[in-house]
Amino acid sequence: MDHERPRPIVAVKFGGTSVGDIERIRKVAARVQRMVDDGHAVALTVSAMGRSTDALVATAREITSRPDRRELDMLMATGEQVSIALVTMALQHQGVRARSFTGAQAGFLTDGQFGYARIVRVDAAPLRRAFEEVDVAVVAGFQGVDARGELTTLGRGGSDTTAVALAAALGAKECEIFTDTDGIYTTDPHQVPDATKLDVIDYDEMLELAALGARVLHPRSVWYARRYGVRIHVRSSFSFATGTIVTRTAGTQEARMRTEKPVTGVALDTSHARINVVGVPDEPGVAAAIFSALGEAGVSADMIIQGVPGAGDSRQQMSFTVPLDLADDAVEAVRPALERLGGGEVSADADVAKLSIVGIAIGSTPGLAGRLFAAVSRSGANIEMIATSEVRISVIIPKDRAQEALQAVHDAFGLGRTEA
Amino acid sequence: MDHERPRPIVAVKFGGTSVGDIERIRKVAARVQRMVDDGHAVALTVSAMGRSTDALVATAREITSRPDRRELDMLMATGEQVSIALVTMALQHQGVRARSFTGAQAGFLTDGQFGYARIVRVDAAPLRRAFEEVDVAVVAGFQGVDARGELTTLGRGGSDTTAVALAAALGAKECEIFTDTDGIYTTDPHQVPDATKLDVIDYDEMLELAALGARVLHPRSVWYARRYGVRIHVRSSFSFATGTIVTRTAGTQEARMRTEKPVTGVALDTSHARINVVGVPDEPGVAAAIFSALGEAGVSADMIIQGVPGAGDSRQQMSFTVPLDLADDAVEAVRPALERLGGGEVSADADVAKLSIVGIAIGSTPGLAGRLFAAVSRSGANIEMIATSEVRISVIIPKDRAQEALQAVHDAFGLGRTEA
Repeated sequence: MDHERPRPIVAVKFGGTSVGDIERIRKVAARVQRMVDDGHAVALTVSAMGRSTDALVATAREITSRPDRRELDMLMATGEQVSIALVTMALQHQGVRARSFTGAQAGFLTDGQFGYARIVRVDAAPLRRAFEEVDVAVVAGFQGVDARGELTTLGRGGSDTTAVALAAALGAKECEIFTDTDGIYTTDPHQVPDATKLDVIDYDEMLELAALGARVLHPRSVWYARRYGVRIHVRSSFSFATGTIVTRTAGTQEARMRTEKPVTGVALDTSHARINVVGVPDEPGVAAAIFSALGEAGVSADMIIQGVPGAGDSRQQMSFTVPLDLADDAVEAVRPALERLGGGEVSADADVAKLSIVGIAIGSTPGLAGRLFAAVSRSGANIEMIATSEVRISVIIPKDRAQEALQAVHDAFGLGRTEA
Repeated sequence: MDHERPRPIVAVKFGGTSVGDIERIRKVAARVQRMVDDGHAVALTVSAMGRSTDALVATAREITSRPDRRELDMLMATGEQVSIALVTMALQHQGVRARSFTGAQAGFLTDGQFGYARIVRVDAAPLRRAFEEVDVAVVAGFQGVDARGELTTLGRGGSDTTAVALAAALGAKECEIFTDTDGIYTTDPHQVPDATKLDVIDYDEMLELAALGARVLHPRSVWYARRYGVRIHVRSSFSFATGTIVTRTAGTQEARMRTEKPVTGVALDTSHARINVVGVPDEPGVAAAIFSALGEAGVSADMIIQGVPGAGDSRQQMSFTVPLDLADDAVEAVRPALERLGGGEVSADADVAKLSIVGIAIGSTPGLAGRLFAAVSRSGANIEMIATSEVRISVIIPKDRAQEALQAVHDAFGLGRTEA
């Protein structure tokens, strides 16, 4: 190996399934060894083994139904620490020079929000120094340390963010995310059997899909990749096939071709509830009062519609969506606000689904909304709410019609395998 | 509670058995809550749950028969980190204000010897600050961080040292070690049924007993306690009975009374092998050559005897004891040294036991050696080697007579329950 000039660094990440047992850890080590043999220095991010994080959380909940967030982070961070030690041992056993790094040791400084900390800065110096002595730096995903020295975790899927942030800090052009699927699909292939794998997807499209519940990548990792211009290659741990590249497509050849097929993917999200507020006096400041109350309760609302009162009607109505597990909190927060406003009722409806089409050119392509609404209606679902952005259109429909609507919309935009 | 003046701090430690499952963790939390209710701030050191450290090491050995020491420390340190989070949650669940600390967070700076690091310094500031906000600081035993930020562990039994070092750093007069036995005994009660619990034992006596294989306290924790004048109270996690106090007895009332009964305890250690070197030319520098070779191989010899050659005999012989698992290394290290010296043979004998009497006044009490040798001989054991210090006399005897010799010596010095 030529050590006179620095070796190119590749940033890769293997998820929990990929390091789920000793045999798989050995396979990861073998795969990473090939990268080293190809002349690379490897920044290798790993998650906790299999479902070990869930097991830790379950133990905590045996002790207390509401574990403290700081202590939960202290507990959960051990999962990745076990992985990095074992993966490093497996690499060393194969003769690869490797060293493990906790999030703190790898230079991950975060803010102090336990359970969903954000990365403030990544100091690349520890890994750069390490690459003078070893070929692989094995980094604990999902974790960091705040300015006070407190252990923090980045929230579910945070290991993706760790890997992308390392790629950015080390100047790697690409980050390979090895996972148990072979790429990003036009929609969930478990729900729509003829969903097709995408070769390329734009950051903005992937951001929307990730936020809408596609579980392959964490939204914050995509945001980070977009911000620092890191290409993400999502691919299978279990094959050598090319997966899906997440990159900036606007203005490129792909983007121009894409206008032929303006919808990249369809997402179905059943993790939200609809909150309905009716009979509120129609006065200035009503919306502000309600959303201030939600904010204080730590509930962020997503889609919002406000009914226009008819002539002579002095009562307002309003609906919005919130994460399903926060629906009760939302109702409890809004109720006292309504009393202060002089009336009104609030209720939650969990039997809704959010169906979205995503594509970078959606905002500049006329007629897409009409095609979406027509497909949904043909499937027999009633559209209850609508929200649009530059890159997506979402509708709220009854949950029991969601499956048919998803298939109908996937077909209507020509995303199925038969159309490819 | 009066918060105007700082509360007295107590340092306590619960071992792996005491936090072995959720139910026991709850019991530890309840016991610590009583200390808080009594007006104390509690520096609580905990070990890894049950045999979880062994399980981690076994997993590492599935991957590689010789795991790297650094990576093994990275792995093992997670065991205590799990414990501190769960114990803290249990305390919080009972309404006690508690916060967990890794070794690094608790201010434990060590040297860089992975697997058996020594404490360089304990910074008391993090815990002192914490006690302004919480009642219990739950500290991960057995671990620290070196000047480079590397995670280190203190070796087996290191949590005792953590607890004592915290007591010293925080100015606590006493450190309570809660364990699965109710104190220190005159000898191992599993081997001598009428062994009696000691109320008090001197640091020097305890150091010898711990070094000779009494598994209740780690020798380094005793050394640390003696150096900083911290009393150790070894007691049961499962009862409220007083245990054994380890302290300085010299010159005190107890020490004077002790001259009545100069032997405090009897230890039997079967973890050493005897190495025999015969037929070496009797020249200056022979011993130096042999022990230099051992030193380079990382083997430290304990008891050493050198035979006096008879008239006209120009060959030397020599025996010493080494830890059983280093016996092969010792033989391999000595053999080439003998070749360079011009002859001689080396062999190992694993079938030996070291029987010792320990007592602070042994060096100043005439006649004890004779009583010891007589008791051993009456039991039918042949004395192969003898070593003495101010606080102990040890003999090497055949392993198959060790049990009878232990009982005979325990009886001869009046340590049994019937004599109390």
